[in-house]
Amino acid sequence: MKSLDELITNLKHQKSNKVAVAQAADKEVLLAVKKAVDLQLATFILTGDKEEIQRLAGEVKLNVHAGDEIQIIDCLTEEASFEAVKAVSIGTAQVVMKGNVDTKALLKAVLNKQDGLRTGKILSHVALFEIPGQERLIFLTDSAMNIAPNLEEKVQIIKNAVDVAIGSGWVMPKVAPLAAVEVINPSMQATIDAATLTQMNRRGQISGCIVDGPLAFDNAVSSISAEQKGIKSEVAGKADILMVPSIEVANALYKSFMYFAHAKVAAVISGASAPIVLTSRSDTSESKVYSLALALHSSK
Amino acid sequence: MKSLDELITNLKHQKSNKVAVAQAADKEVLLAVKKAVDLQLATFILTGDKEEIQRLAGEVKLNVHAGDEIQIIDCLTEEASFEAVKAVSIGTAQVVMKGNVDTKALLKAVLNKQDGLRTGKILSHVALFEIPGQERLIFLTDSAMNIAPNLEEKVQIIKNAVDVAIGSGWVMPKVAPLAAVEVINPSMQATIDAATLTQMNRRGQISGCIVDGPLAFDNAVSSISAEQKGIKSEVAGKADILMVPSIEVANALYKSFMYFAHAKVAAVISGASAPIVLTSRSDTSESKVYSLALALHSSK
Repeated sequence: MKSLDELITNLKHQKSNKVAVAQAADKEVLLAVKKAVDLQLATFILTGDKEEIQRLAGEVKLNVHAGDEIQIIDCLTEEASFEAVKAVSIGTAQVVMKGNVDTKALLKAVLNKQDGLRTGKILSHVALFEIPGQERLIFLTDSAMNIAPNLEEKVQIIKNAVDVAIGSGWVMPKVAPLAAVEVINPSMQATIDAATLTQMNRRGQISGCIVDGPLAFDNAVSSISAEQKGIKSEVAGKADILMVPSIEVANALYKSFMYFAHAKVAAVISGASAPIVLTSRSDTSESKVYSLALALHSSK
Repeated sequence: MKSLDELITNLKHQKSNKVAVAQAADKEVLLAVKKAVDLQLATFILTGDKEEIQRLAGEVKLNVHAGDEIQIIDCLTEEASFEAVKAVSIGTAQVVMKGNVDTKALLKAVLNKQDGLRTGKILSHVALFEIPGQERLIFLTDSAMNIAPNLEEKVQIIKNAVDVAIGSGWVMPKVAPLAAVEVINPSMQATIDAATLTQMNRRGQISGCIVDGPLAFDNAVSSISAEQKGIKSEVAGKADILMVPSIEVANALYKSFMYFAHAKVAAVISGASAPIVLTSRSDTSESKVYSLALALHSSK
């Protein structure tokens, strides 16, 4: 895939999915909902203060009386996350989207034992970037949920990202566990974990993808750099998924892609029984729609 | 400063510095030497196999018989690092540059008790980037020497970078100790260290600069992002020096600047009694000359 627009094109008319928005009383969120409806990407259940939702929907010219496309569940803000998650839990909707609620409140509802979306897996953040000048889209994980994942958590972080990639059309995505170097250095835990993850992939403990690491960033994304270093690998220079060793690496890379390389991004939380869209106030509505499309692709 | 070319412009005719190259029998290195001589940036002592140096110099049209500009110390490769470092140690040259020797061999000579360049400080890597679209140059440290620096090492890493920045013309450079977030989180050591470093700066334990952290990458480099987050800081949005918590963060950012944001870079090892230029084979000769200029600025 070469552009995030393909996420939308590939989705159109293929699935009839419903998204549950937790407390939709937010102009920016409703603008993204309107764009998604106009693009026929999905239909929506909006939870929260009905009057406020209707008022703000009017401001962004979103027709909330449009029959099956938009349904409102009138409730208090404190209940909005639970109502949205419940709609997914009982199968009415396939994706949860954060509206005007705290991330913590939404995740509490997701992890709730009753009517939640628990799977026993850890949740992780999966971002997909379109970077000007690069031939293909690149996934980065985990920029938001796990601070310093251990080996077991890294296994799950890879699996979560692979699920999203496969849902979006990748076949056997190439996973690069990143480190600062491409050789194993006993004083660099990231290199040891990367080597271990590679072998776990060969033994079938991580499947549906090709894992090969450690790789440094340049060896992972640039064939020229990989060749200069003489690295023989199916992943080097062609990585689809960059799995980084800490939240500091992920956050810095994410922001450098956005601020210095002028990237576009779609992102989703993976690992629950349904994908979760956690957009933030600073995201453009374009980015919110891309994230919705990525979530819809990765929903079962 | 807005471009790395200013490093060269500002240097011209200002100092008469000599660079000692450890084993100069390398075509790419000699090409950089030629460019530096043509730009009148420095004069050179070339250590290593004299015949081979003369042969390769001929290939790149570098005149090694040009009187004071180029001097050759004929020696075995095993002695080349020590001869180059010694030239700096006794005051004949002001900068050491790696030629066709292993980094380890050169650093061994630098850290040698007799005729070395030890100061008791740790060595750290300081890189300076020119990033298309960005208004100012940005330093990043430490991408090469320290894997997971502790607080004490971070203090020295900041001081080493500040020395380089001040030598190159910055006045009270703004230092951002990076983390994944801008708030202190007890489970994120990077945020605790960043807060501590900030207070150490206020107490005068780190001087000649303004330190304020933790900052996430976007808060550090973008005023808009800092304002959106409501961060009040003299450094946010205007950071000159990004001090990152681990070699993984530094390496990934370094490479993402180069490969995705099409940056130019100059780099130097700081902390010894003289700056060391550790260029690698994949650096362009342009980058090698920028690194030389940065090193010459930061030499005493």
